[in-house]
Amino acid sequence: MPAVSLEKAQRIMRRIDTLAQYSAMDGMVTRAYLTAQHKAAHQQLAEWMQQAGLQTWQDEVGNQWGRLVSANPTQGTLIIGSHSDTVVNAGKYDGPLGVIMAIEALASLQGQALPFHVDVVAFADEEGTRFNTTLLGSSGVCGCWNPAWLDIVDADGISIGQALAEFGLEAAAIGQASRQAESLKGYLEVHIEQGPMLESLDLAVGVVTGIAGAKRYLIDIKGVAGHAGTVPLALRHDALCAAAEMISCTESFAQQQQIVATVGKCQIRGGAVNVIPGNVQFSLDIRSQDQAQLELCCQQLLEQYRTIAAARAVTINIENIYQASAVPCDAKLQAQWGEAVAAVTGKPAYYLSSGAGHDAMMMANITPMGMLFLRCEKGISHNPRENVQLDDVAVALACLIQMLHSASAW
Amino acid sequence: MPAVSLEKAQRIMRRIDTLAQYSAMDGMVTRAYLTAQHKAAHQQLAEWMQQAGLQTWQDEVGNQWGRLVSANPTQGTLIIGSHSDTVVNAGKYDGPLGVIMAIEALASLQGQALPFHVDVVAFADEEGTRFNTTLLGSSGVCGCWNPAWLDIVDADGISIGQALAEFGLEAAAIGQASRQAESLKGYLEVHIEQGPMLESLDLAVGVVTGIAGAKRYLIDIKGVAGHAGTVPLALRHDALCAAAEMISCTESFAQQQQIVATVGKCQIRGGAVNVIPGNVQFSLDIRSQDQAQLELCCQQLLEQYRTIAAARAVTINIENIYQASAVPCDAKLQAQWGEAVAAVTGKPAYYLSSGAGHDAMMMANITPMGMLFLRCEKGISHNPRENVQLDDVAVALACLIQMLHSASAW
Repeated sequence: MPAVSLEKAQRIMRRIDTLAQYSAMDGMVTRAYLTAQHKAAHQQLAEWMQQAGLQTWQDEVGNQWGRLVSANPTQGTLIIGSHSDTVVNAGKYDGPLGVIMAIEALASLQGQALPFHVDVVAFADEEGTRFNTTLLGSSGVCGCWNPAWLDIVDADGISIGQALAEFGLEAAAIGQASRQAESLKGYLEVHIEQGPMLESLDLAVGVVTGIAGAKRYLIDIKGVAGHAGTVPLALRHDALCAAAEMISCTESFAQQQQIVATVGKCQIRGGAVNVIPGNVQFSLDIRSQDQAQLELCCQQLLEQYRTIAAARAVTINIENIYQASAVPCDAKLQAQWGEAVAAVTGKPAYYLSSGAGHDAMMMANITPMGMLFLRCEKGISHNPRENVQLDDVAVALACLIQMLHSASAW
Repeated sequence: MPAVSLEKAQRIMRRIDTLAQYSAMDGMVTRAYLTAQHKAAHQQLAEWMQQAGLQTWQDEVGNQWGRLVSANPTQGTLIIGSHSDTVVNAGKYDGPLGVIMAIEALASLQGQALPFHVDVVAFADEEGTRFNTTLLGSSGVCGCWNPAWLDIVDADGISIGQALAEFGLEAAAIGQASRQAESLKGYLEVHIEQGPMLESLDLAVGVVTGIAGAKRYLIDIKGVAGHAGTVPLALRHDALCAAAEMISCTESFAQQQQIVATVGKCQIRGGAVNVIPGNVQFSLDIRSQDQAQLELCCQQLLEQYRTIAAARAVTINIENIYQASAVPCDAKLQAQWGEAVAAVTGKPAYYLSSGAGHDAMMMANITPMGMLFLRCEKGISHNPRENVQLDDVAVALACLIQMLHSASAW
């Protein structure tokens, strides 16, 4: 069993701090796809990869790679990584932790022979900060790159095609970034949880069972606007009261079904302090790791919305604006992570699902995928207050090294 | 009993259409205080007043007056009127109906001797459209004009002081607009209901019992923002779910207490479809004709808000942003209106309170005040779809004429 090393964890933490300096904004971490800061960050990662004895390259989508070459590869290549881009005013750990920990894990092998290559990857675009389209980096690796994306423009009107060229990449060669499923052994990713479950259970790490599917809707309620002083309650068709009942219904339904459902946007059109709301729009985001449950819950909840609207004689319009299918983690890799966690911590592993999306969900298209979550303070992420404990980093690193040791036998 | 005259009602309707042409915007009715359109509208009103045999003048606040002079006034002056200004994209009837009907009522006396002067007034600012401060016209008449108001500016930076000068008025003389309480007999106003009660009861007119008091609050809820996918329901402090529960609570409380309460504004600060709302602000407008009930209801409802906030461990901040006391209509004048309605319609009068503010509430400071409401279509007001029926106008006019006949005996 690999030792839990605070020293190695400290180096990971130092490097995370260093990488956080590569930012478009002073005093905050903002590193978007194909920017100058992004390029410099990849050069820094490549330097650390080389120090760990890895062969480095950047692929045609802009992902940064480092390979621990096997002298005698008899098995497919194992990929370990996460992403190097960030949201605006981000935390330091979301993404970089997984990349830098992978480099550290390989460095710790100190030339030990493996029957497979190990590739560390820093995916170039997971967040979609610049072009409002996510998982571009892993899409390229999975052969899911859509040529139409080259025309998507950022806020300054610069297209992905132009940005690739400015980054020194050739859009026409993008197909070369894709990896063949049959050449791969699997994909592992360590990531902060971005939620409060592990902290609430006082656990350093947890094994991810799958990435939740999500559906998003825009709900439009039309009632009748009116004078706040002159229309008695019994004669009102208040669109906000209808929405409020639906929001409360969403909350109790989600609790009942043990899923997550969120109304994150809600606005009154033409609202004023002395006007009965006539038109309200709100969003619904609903997620479940179980795709069948997700479909059923959407159906049931939206039916409840319709019942509320009918009882209040307001009209309701429901538009599905987004959907992503649930992606289970590979069962065998879940078991392997579980054994690693038990070996390192001396306690049975805790299993939890991911409500957030990750590159791993894209990688599942071409290879078995497994993830480990690391506790983060108060579950806060996408925020400068994102934080992790040194001890937890040491535990997660030991688990990842254990996975490398056991991988030959998978 | 005065005959119900469709012919006179038709002239009122034609004049309302004519007055609607005095507008700052083509195709819609927008006539703000002290604008060129406002001045022209007053000239038109003065012409109609003169045709009815009235002596006309404009006071120092810009109100337009016309007096039916009594040869032998042994009683105080009776004032009848409403306002001549409008909201943006207004209806035609809110205000002008009461002024034009008063002119018609006096015209119908055809020189009949009265033991008091009757003054018709078109108050110059009831809506507060231009300077965001209401009842300027009647404030001047009641001696409640605040000299500090002269510095209030409109959207173009023009102060009330400048606007008065441009209108041909002298701000320094504004005190002369005020009328002495002891010289007055009372104030009568006919106005559209601006609510749906009369229509729902199939009644042409109703006697107003009083003008509701109102209180307005701004409620700020602070919960904890978070990732919509990763924070389980049990660990959330969702500010919008808290607000939704408060909004539903407001609705059921108002129904229970038979008052009106409205959440007309509601916004999530920094909301996004995939973020648990961390901060929500909403407004509360609550009204009652009974000031004591209003105070008690505010206290009880806000206490319920605090209980909801505490149960959800979110913080709540409550700011009182407005209050206006309830103003009862004069009991004797209510009875007189009631007799007039019964005489004209052959049915007992229906009594209702006003949820909206009117010049009458200001006039109550200096003289007994009584109002008659006229049914308006679907209760719609402050909207181009504002509409009234010719028959109802004829009924209201007959009631007003009956009030003039009975006034000597009050």
